[in-house]
Amino acid sequence: MDGRKVPAPTIERLALYLLCLKPLLERGIETVSSETIARLVGRNAPQVRKDLSYLGQFGTPGVGYNVAELRRKLALMMGLEREKKVFLVGAGSLGSALCRYGGFREEGFNICAVFDNDPAKVGKRLGRLQIQDISELIPANLEQKVDMAIIAVPASASQAVANLLVEAGIPSIATFAPTPIEVPSQMSVRTVDLTKELAVLSCRVHLREGAANVSGAD
Amino acid sequence: MDGRKVPAPTIERLALYLLCLKPLLERGIETVSSETIARLVGRNAPQVRKDLSYLGQFGTPGVGYNVAELRRKLALMMGLEREKKVFLVGAGSLGSALCRYGGFREEGFNICAVFDNDPAKVGKRLGRLQIQDISELIPANLEQKVDMAIIAVPASASQAVANLLVEAGIPSIATFAPTPIEVPSQMSVRTVDLTKELAVLSCRVHLREGAANVSGAD
Repeated sequence: MDGRKVPAPTIERLALYLLCLKPLLERGIETVSSETIARLVGRNAPQVRKDLSYLGQFGTPGVGYNVAELRRKLALMMGLEREKKVFLVGAGSLGSALCRYGGFREEGFNICAVFDNDPAKVGKRLGRLQIQDISELIPANLEQKVDMAIIAVPASASQAVANLLVEAGIPSIATFAPTPIEVPSQMSVRTVDLTKELAVLSCRVHLREGAANVSGAD
Repeated sequence: MDGRKVPAPTIERLALYLLCLKPLLERGIETVSSETIARLVGRNAPQVRKDLSYLGQFGTPGVGYNVAELRRKLALMMGLEREKKVFLVGAGSLGSALCRYGGFREEGFNICAVFDNDPAKVGKRLGRLQIQDISELIPANLEQKVDMAIIAVPASASQAVANLLVEAGIPSIATFAPTPIEVPSQMSVRTVDLTKELAVLSCRVHLREGAANVSGAD
């Protein structure tokens, strides 16, 4: 870190760079160029070099970056050099899928407890975990002190869950409920709105078709 | 549409504006201010007004926008005035959760077929659909002519699935496989990388803690 404030879009891209490196390491690749990183994440090489300059001066011009060192530096900058403990709230179909999703664990995000308020679900197993009653979340966090929580409950319940997470003192939240939640400003919230993703796709195609029609192109 | 090219971040926000209006309509609210929209989506009012200016001149200063009219205009601009037909590829735990996710249908995205290459899954029911063999995708699209496809297969299989979707002539793809896919430039692709979302959260908290330590704030 060279002391400059890292802009939000750069953080997004740094996360992508970090995640693309593990497959390279696993294939025994020692050095990677900015061009290769750019191709792997669908960006351009000058942008990759500019973004990585936030890590300080390293990498060899004409050769590239040492993969292991780059990964270590990125992980350190992003607070990902140690495993992150994660609570999951909501054991419905989306929550269950997230709990079973192998990608989290592989990248060091360990879902260490899952909570629901449905008596029919509490006590049942979900993968290697047993679903706990939501009332156990605050005591569980006193013990586990997790880094983040994932909300996978219906939109109508998401603010109540967020309030509970605030009360528990959990510093960051990823929510899959498609509605904004209000939390104190020192907390970080990331909303993943699946329907929005499809709406954006539709809009892009529609605007391009409109432009093509206007210009007479096919 | 006033003929200006709509920037990508504006498209993202327009999608959020569109999605926040339905609950208002359902509650019988007829008029909405830019301040209310801003609050609902976690943005600020001047940005909402600027973004909505892409729809042309409408709305009454000091009163706001007619909710139904705003929704119609946004849907028209985004190509969402009619239902979108969607294929889902991958009937694993994430694919199954996406298939059951009610939010898509509510907003006019109709998952009308689901495909997998696992003989143990093909023929089984997933909600109201029967899982079809992936070899049936191209003929199914000749009949259904879907607007988009969702990829929910392991990263290692995502490019092969993307190639099949290209061959089928499906114009846009939302992929949950955390690896970039290569498709012809006229196609639209949206990658939802769940692990990246958690990495970005971690980075934000970590950089803020770092800044707080440097500045001596608590």
